Amino acid sequence: MDSVSLTLGEARDLALRCLLHNGCDQDNAAAAADRMIEAEADHCHSHGLFRLPWYVGGVRSGRVNGAARPSVEQLAPGVIRVDGDGGFAPLGQRVAHGPLVECARAQGIAALGFVNMFHIAALWPEVEALANEGLCAFAFTASYPYVAPAGGKRPLFGTNPMGFGWPRPGGTPMVFDQASSAMARGEIQIAARDGKSVPETAGIGPDGETTTDPEVVLAGAQLGFGGYKGATLAMMVELLAGPLIGDFLSVESEQDDAGRGGPPKGGELLIAMDPARFGDEQGFLAHGERLFEAILEQDGTRLPGQRRHESRAVTAREGIRIPRSLYVEIEALLA
Amino acid sequence: MDSVSLTLGEARDLALRCLLHNGCDQDNAAAAADRMIEAEADHCHSHGLFRLPWYVGGVRSGRVNGAARPSVEQLAPGVIRVDGDGGFAPLGQRVAHGPLVECARAQGIAALGFVNMFHIAALWPEVEALANEGLCAFAFTASYPYVAPAGGKRPLFGTNPMGFGWPRPGGTPMVFDQASSAMARGEIQIAARDGKSVPETAGIGPDGETTTDPEVVLAGAQLGFGGYKGATLAMMVELLAGPLIGDFLSVESEQDDAGRGGPPKGGELLIAMDPARFGDEQGFLAHGERLFEAILEQDGTRLPGQRRHESRAVTAREGIRIPRSLYVEIEALLA
Repeated sequence: MDSVSLTLGEARDLALRCLLHNGCDQDNAAAAADRMIEAEADHCHSHGLFRLPWYVGGVRSGRVNGAARPSVEQLAPGVIRVDGDGGFAPLGQRVAHGPLVECARAQGIAALGFVNMFHIAALWPEVEALANEGLCAFAFTASYPYVAPAGGKRPLFGTNPMGFGWPRPGGTPMVFDQASSAMARGEIQIAARDGKSVPETAGIGPDGETTTDPEVVLAGAQLGFGGYKGATLAMMVELLAGPLIGDFLSVESEQDDAGRGGPPKGGELLIAMDPARFGDEQGFLAHGERLFEAILEQDGTRLPGQRRHESRAVTAREGIRIPRSLYVEIEALLA
Repeated sequence: MDSVSLTLGEARDLALRCLLHNGCDQDNAAAAADRMIEAEADHCHSHGLFRLPWYVGGVRSGRVNGAARPSVEQLAPGVIRVDGDGGFAPLGQRVAHGPLVECARAQGIAALGFVNMFHIAALWPEVEALANEGLCAFAFTASYPYVAPAGGKRPLFGTNPMGFGWPRPGGTPMVFDQASSAMARGEIQIAARDGKSVPETAGIGPDGETTTDPEVVLAGAQLGFGGYKGATLAMMVELLAGPLIGDFLSVESEQDDAGRGGPPKGGELLIAMDPARFGDEQGFLAHGERLFEAILEQDGTRLPGQRRHESRAVTAREGIRIPRSLYVEIEALLA
């Protein structure tokens, strides 16, 4: 594939300039650019610069507030709400981090509902940041109707990822971020762009039949991982990121977009727990390590996130490569 | 199959007498019997009277405290610990319910760690009880090493279910309780007992190869649902029900049992949230119903737990049937 090499600094500068040129202010552009480059650094291209045209389109259309000023409100001793002011999620997450950490340490457990924002980023950066503070954390977000409910054939749920982080002593925390769908939407889009096929478990066409053609899946419905159990998790995520915190279901987000094809407006729920307040302050870290050691003793295993951290070390030295077609598309957005 | 018919009252009386005869006091026996009969009433036989010989064996061996007096301790404003005093989980759960509900309503979110107890019951009764109070709830528990980690071939994690409940107006709440493994352990045991095969996705033999023979899976390792994603959830549950709350990993529970084959000693984490404290007190219930309506509009769908509630209506009228071999086994425990 014809590609362009960039250092991480060059990639960040490209994303930043592109967002500033297209209606984001410095704070909003920097938060979104950092988030995309974190994904590129971890070789998660589907959340990297691939998303930039979608970010730009959202602001250009006037739907997304490029000058958002997120606000923080304490709703209950253990519950915080952050209103994203109609901007992209990364700035809201930056604003939310400190208050959530403080609340979780004080209460033992705390929840944070993000509302009124556009969420098209990965979840692992915020759970990793919480785990880096010594906390155990969950994150949940919905999107647009892409995934069929258990037994159904039409899309209703987002791919609805759940992120989870657990702190580790002196190293990178254990973090995973996995879609409730068999495949991430971005991976299917990239397969379609690159003319590749997808596994039969990924989804069904508009006719309800399984297919390996990513374009047909994108027009039909994705399926939950492991069949009905993944779809059931997707439903749970709808409830947590929608009705619980007072934000959109995936279908409501699609209605709000009204066919403009912009990024999904919706909510995110974070839950953070301080293991030091759960009764084994001295032991919990070493106890978690005993589990990880037992996993890694077996041939063929690795911890979730391990590959991301290996990629991070590589890209810090060698930079990244993006498809030339994407680079050209981004350059055009700077004209 | 040769079977015995019992009313729910007769079944409860049978379980109660059997537990009382074998070393449980009234409170412990009643809580465990009720829990088994709730499962039978919902046609979930793998958590019903099928478990009774295991309960009895645990008490007879002296490992389980049949006269346990669970105690409640507030560890942080949002965190409660219940020490099960070495008894079976159902009595501890009965004791824990009120304090957890009160704490969740006061704080908006609360966590409860059960420790020092034997857990061989389903999770849905406690999340259903919390959802009946208008709360949104999670439950997590580990067991013995049955499931291989992602990429591995030897058992390390329990089947590690996650329960989830969401309140519904004027009706039964939406509740699911699904193992992180492709199949529940009890279902594989019942397939083995009845000479039936299991799907290839259920597990691998001691040689690491897939098989449809339940006996071979029981001797080898179960697999996570949907492959590595289910195994990753199983790992998460180990951390939540073990290191977080200061109780056993599944491998530690097996070591503690030391080959006696008794029920697994371990922990359980409950998280309860009061949606009325998350910012949409007036709207959240109707909002959840809009999701459920959209699911049920599609042919072939049903809500998780729907079949259980239908079964509950049937068994209330018609009672239950258990295999004669199980009935004979229970009668022998009463001799």
